[in-house]
Amino acid sequence: MSMEVIQTIDGLWRAKHHLCREFATKNQKRPYVGLVPTMGNLHHGHLSLVRRMVDECDVSVGSIFVNPAQFAPGEDFSEYPRTPEADLMQCEDAGVDIVFMPESDALYTQDHSTEVIVRKLTERYCGAERPGHFAGVTLVVAKLLNIVHPDIAYFGQKDYQQFRVIERMVRDLDFPLDLAMCPTVREPDGLAMSSRNAYLAEDERKAAATIYSGLQELADAFATGQDGAEALKEVARTELAEAVQLEYLEIANAWSLDPKESAASGDVVLIAAKVGGIRLIDNIVLAAGDENAH
Amino acid sequence: MSMEVIQTIDGLWRAKHHLCREFATKNQKRPYVGLVPTMGNLHHGHLSLVRRMVDECDVSVGSIFVNPAQFAPGEDFSEYPRTPEADLMQCEDAGVDIVFMPESDALYTQDHSTEVIVRKLTERYCGAERPGHFAGVTLVVAKLLNIVHPDIAYFGQKDYQQFRVIERMVRDLDFPLDLAMCPTVREPDGLAMSSRNAYLAEDERKAAATIYSGLQELADAFATGQDGAEALKEVARTELAEAVQLEYLEIANAWSLDPKESAASGDVVLIAAKVGGIRLIDNIVLAAGDENAH
Repeated sequence: MSMEVIQTIDGLWRAKHHLCREFATKNQKRPYVGLVPTMGNLHHGHLSLVRRMVDECDVSVGSIFVNPAQFAPGEDFSEYPRTPEADLMQCEDAGVDIVFMPESDALYTQDHSTEVIVRKLTERYCGAERPGHFAGVTLVVAKLLNIVHPDIAYFGQKDYQQFRVIERMVRDLDFPLDLAMCPTVREPDGLAMSSRNAYLAEDERKAAATIYSGLQELADAFATGQDGAEALKEVARTELAEAVQLEYLEIANAWSLDPKESAASGDVVLIAAKVGGIRLIDNIVLAAGDENAH
Repeated sequence: MSMEVIQTIDGLWRAKHHLCREFATKNQKRPYVGLVPTMGNLHHGHLSLVRRMVDECDVSVGSIFVNPAQFAPGEDFSEYPRTPEADLMQCEDAGVDIVFMPESDALYTQDHSTEVIVRKLTERYCGAERPGHFAGVTLVVAKLLNIVHPDIAYFGQKDYQQFRVIERMVRDLDFPLDLAMCPTVREPDGLAMSSRNAYLAEDERKAAATIYSGLQELADAFATGQDGAEALKEVARTELAEAVQLEYLEIANAWSLDPKESAASGDVVLIAAKVGGIRLIDNIVLAAGDENAH
């Protein structure tokens, strides 16, 4: 059976209903429905989510929508890379059932006036740097959850704060689904995969790899017994190439994202930095010496 | 089959799932599920919604929850009338399948931090008088829609602005359900049924009836050809008893709730007034002379 590409909400409902009924008739149980929401320009990171979804779900839905609401003023919405043909081929190869790919303004009417806002969690780190960004994310995810109504949705660990924000919204608004956080997929030198990596010049690309090696140094120092947050952060900062301009580097509680003075196993290290004007983020979860820190 | 009274979200999901599966097995189709969300203290207005739901739906769910989030600071949350035994008896008599009646703090965790806000529509009329009220309404309705996942939800016309706000949220967030606006149920003298009517002393109760007779006079004047909003509003104001302190009286577009200078068929007349310190609201939809204005 071939993949369906759907551009309207009604079309999505029809296509999903049809697939679900077909599954239910054949298997005498309702299907487990998965969703991977993306902004397209799919790389190996996205594909790891897509493959896990196809593996775990009876009906798998991917969405491709460059969401204007989550770009802060002055950000790269119009220049954000759009590669729909390649994205669709990769989804089809992976075995996705339905790709929901609405027109850029199809999800927002002109008099759209509803906001979904998570307080506190969104007020620091990327939220402080990108005003309105997380409100745009929670809005479009709330819409996609209502449109697709999945049993599970998959997100990458690379956007760690985003995951915690979405998780909070899902809990607070009682959306009935599971969320899966999938490990960050990395280039051979450790740089987290991102659509924005393509913007980096060769020397910038090399410098960018020190973001992750810095996180690793920090995690190794923690694993060998250091736990003072300031000293640990200094370990990472020392590793960063000169071309890496740090925006934030913090050791935080994994759930509340409150900064810690003394690091503990399970805490997350969050980092954002600019390299040649390109904003990159990454993170690592700390593990004690006898666990795997990466 | 007797009615189930459920206090937890998980319990609600189980009970609803069970009823829906039973229905589907018996009828070879999925049931049409209805919801009437209330704050309890049920009167004939609520019961008209409940009866319509039972009549139209295969599985009918009522909710009783005095939602702290929708009371503005200083309002009557703790004194709001609570009559659970009588409410449950009335629901059972009406044929409701499930009543969802969570503990007062069961829907909000201590670190709840998500808001659902409709802009503009909520900024005037009751929204201006009751800061935070509509944000509390949209929040709890979003939660109830995710918990119950009905195909249709019923609301009373008496809370006209509330209906338009919920309708906007449902549209903007793509909640997959229908909304039904049910006619206001009135006392013999025309006063709109409300839990707050019980607070009125006898003379206040008489004065309160002029709120609706004022709306009727206005609608009659419109039906006979007047359309200047200011003159029409004066017709209503003249009818109001002295004990009625007007908060707002406006002729508005039925969808945007923008005030009109010249009234047209389909416009809504919104009124709020205090009688002896008790805040009452009402409304009427205008109809041309050959239609039924009430």
